Amino acid sequence: MRHCGAMSGHHMDPEEFRAHGHALVDWIAGYLERVEDLPVRSRVAPGAVADRLPASPPEQGEPFADMLRDVDDIVVPGLTHWQSPSFFGYFPANSSGPSVLGELLSAGLGVQGMLWSTSPAATELEMRVLDWLRQLLDLPDRFGWDGAGGAVIADSASSANLCALLAARHRAGGADPSLVVYASEHTHSSVEKAVRIAGLAADQLRLVPADAEHAMRPDQLDRLVREDQAAGRRPCMVAATVGTTSSMAVDPVPVIGQLCSRTGIWLHVDAAMAGAAAVCPELRWIHEGLQRADSYCVDAHKWLFTNFDCTAFFVADRDALTGALSVQPEYLRNAASDAGEVVDYRDWQIPLGRRFRALKLWFVLRHYGAAGLRHHIREHVALAGELADRIRRDDRFELVSSVLNLVCFRHRAGDATSAAILEQLNASGAIFLTHTRLDGRYVLRLSVGQTRTERRHVELAWRLLSAAADAMVADNRER
Amino acid sequence: MRHCGAMSGHHMDPEEFRAHGHALVDWIAGYLERVEDLPVRSRVAPGAVADRLPASPPEQGEPFADMLRDVDDIVVPGLTHWQSPSFFGYFPANSSGPSVLGELLSAGLGVQGMLWSTSPAATELEMRVLDWLRQLLDLPDRFGWDGAGGAVIADSASSANLCALLAARHRAGGADPSLVVYASEHTHSSVEKAVRIAGLAADQLRLVPADAEHAMRPDQLDRLVREDQAAGRRPCMVAATVGTTSSMAVDPVPVIGQLCSRTGIWLHVDAAMAGAAAVCPELRWIHEGLQRADSYCVDAHKWLFTNFDCTAFFVADRDALTGALSVQPEYLRNAASDAGEVVDYRDWQIPLGRRFRALKLWFVLRHYGAAGLRHHIREHVALAGELADRIRRDDRFELVSSVLNLVCFRHRAGDATSAAILEQLNASGAIFLTHTRLDGRYVLRLSVGQTRTERRHVELAWRLLSAAADAMVADNRER
Repeated sequence: MRHCGAMSGHHMDPEEFRAHGHALVDWIAGYLERVEDLPVRSRVAPGAVADRLPASPPEQGEPFADMLRDVDDIVVPGLTHWQSPSFFGYFPANSSGPSVLGELLSAGLGVQGMLWSTSPAATELEMRVLDWLRQLLDLPDRFGWDGAGGAVIADSASSANLCALLAARHRAGGADPSLVVYASEHTHSSVEKAVRIAGLAADQLRLVPADAEHAMRPDQLDRLVREDQAAGRRPCMVAATVGTTSSMAVDPVPVIGQLCSRTGIWLHVDAAMAGAAAVCPELRWIHEGLQRADSYCVDAHKWLFTNFDCTAFFVADRDALTGALSVQPEYLRNAASDAGEVVDYRDWQIPLGRRFRALKLWFVLRHYGAAGLRHHIREHVALAGELADRIRRDDRFELVSSVLNLVCFRHRAGDATSAAILEQLNASGAIFLTHTRLDGRYVLRLSVGQTRTERRHVELAWRLLSAAADAMVADNRER
Repeated sequence: MRHCGAMSGHHMDPEEFRAHGHALVDWIAGYLERVEDLPVRSRVAPGAVADRLPASPPEQGEPFADMLRDVDDIVVPGLTHWQSPSFFGYFPANSSGPSVLGELLSAGLGVQGMLWSTSPAATELEMRVLDWLRQLLDLPDRFGWDGAGGAVIADSASSANLCALLAARHRAGGADPSLVVYASEHTHSSVEKAVRIAGLAADQLRLVPADAEHAMRPDQLDRLVREDQAAGRRPCMVAATVGTTSSMAVDPVPVIGQLCSRTGIWLHVDAAMAGAAAVCPELRWIHEGLQRADSYCVDAHKWLFTNFDCTAFFVADRDALTGALSVQPEYLRNAASDAGEVVDYRDWQIPLGRRFRALKLWFVLRHYGAAGLRHHIREHVALAGELADRIRRDDRFELVSSVLNLVCFRHRAGDATSAAILEQLNASGAIFLTHTRLDGRYVLRLSVGQTRTERRHVELAWRLLSAAADAMVADNRER
């Protein structure tokens, strides 16, 4: 039964695993050392990677070295390098050494955490480490395990938003065409997706108008809720956003929470991108009013040095969530579950199976410590603030917004110029940023938060933006 | 900005990552060498792991060696060892060296595959490697990319089943209380969960009675469909199972497919556990009739040496799936998507973000080759068959079913004795198996399929079962 070398098609034995594992660890360390020098945005054309891959799988096994060679030759040129210190697009996906090693350990152990009994440590470490995160972010006690609350690691804020909706719907008595969900017009697309998945009609979602800062207008929310109630509809959930994707706008949770408490509407707060900022006491204003929320989520895999996937999803009433998601087949019954003395995380999520994702968050929180996390988050916010100041003082650009680590701006010459600058910089490979539309206008977004981003990278970004703007204007003059 | 040692709270630099990575690779290799000697089922009581973890996160960063020490001291005793060669419970979660290394590489690269443009190689490698799998399993051409079909890696068959339902519902015109879903009474609990998540009422799911082999009765399906049609309801989807969880029963897909084709019902085939068997031509009978299916899923993370999560989800009409799940916010727009020339996998799944999971499947298929995979699957099926023969010839036990790698049996003395044998063996730590109920009776399930399971492990399992049965009877006599 034992292996007979790399080409055998047999299992990789521990000796081989050690050798290949060391080689791959070294490869990753080398990648992270040189990623700064690679073009941030991939330059491959559609189909170019696929064309270099065989049309059919090999009949005989291949040596590991061949795969690593193809990673270099075929895969790396096809990557947009999210771990580059000059990646300023979308949102940070700031992984770290301890997180990558936690993921490796999870894969190596290969246990299932679907039930407490299928590996008790997977469940109990997750419960504990999420409570650590609750303390780090100074989240309300009601999300702790001592009362009726609790928390779970989800794969994404999209899934957490869906689960919040399912819990809210369950508390409201189940699926019903009279239910209505509310979110700001700047809410993340996952709320619309969740509404659709849950089988609500498009007109069961109300997009509440936002104010000049792109935050939900509570007076408009109040108006919509009253109109729906008057028409016999039943307001079910408000999804408030702390840090919108487009511009990091923060919905006024305190006022929204009062309205929800008064009317019995489930309040879900999506802080996927911004929530991590609350490790710093001076940034905890973003969570004002959170004590009225029924559920809350933050992505450790965005701005907390933990590789995707690791969304922390907190609920004040865990029974509402498990009531919505629990199904009890015989083949999953066991003494601990029957006794009701354990948490079975399968009832907290869409899938049944689950990896041991708590390991990576545990490693990250222990490696950095609270002090380390605060230090790095502060650095990112400071760097974004410095860039925003430069843009504010510059005649060519208009600063549209600057909140936490996200700077939104546009060229005063208009949308076409802004879009052309974006495309030119991304095509150069030197930096990468993305765009959105705010108030109908094309806006550049520059998000500071990669693990290896330092002041020099943000300064380079500014020089390149500045040069591109000058070149654009010169170019327009010549025409 | 650079780190100053392990206790600093600063980023782990490449040198440190190399050192800790090598140490962790060695730790995993050592774990896999000694996992055979560990009690398979964890012996910790509820709360015992949590009690050993600090109540609050550390203020200062800690050295990596401390975490690895706690993995040994706190985590490992709290694990049920799914990678033990004596793990015969639930389903195989047969990870492998190349898969673990693929997962490590995915974490190290840290790219997002939500859009083609966010890392083209992540999408194109996934498309290609899933087509390799389609060829390996000899799945119908309609699931290939040449026509209207395609495939995606989902986190689980639960999520694939949900996405199939959403696609079927979309094709049927959207959420509607007149829609009806059909599955056998032995279908996996995830189908009921999907129905509930999608907002269908409990009476919109029909559990079709099964035959003596626990497979769906097509005559009963036909009857239910006709009744529903006559009552003005609209049959939407049939979820057929190839390899039920309880007993590996195979629903008669050819007949079910004819009915679905005739009536325009979406046919989804869930082969989560069994599908991998089709790498062997002599086992491809399980997929008979699949050419009429609209969608199909198989878990590479069960019986194909790939660590969780890696469900391959195939569709014949990719537009039905993306039509159900696509939402288009401005901040995700890009030239390649707008041109319609690429696949954006975010529209194929519940979450938005996604890891580069194709790497691990690519590594596994290349490491083993088709020949290697066939060899190991055949070995598992042969070992299960040998055990089934022994049970069949034994007076104490009744063989309830034996299909592929799953053996279901009971002690003739009845449910209490069977349950007592299970608990005694699992408590011993020597082997681990789980149970179900079939035809109202308590049945032991023994699933052969772990990566390191050899004949000697299955023989040990039989000796222990045999001894436990003898001891049980002797014990009963004494009383």
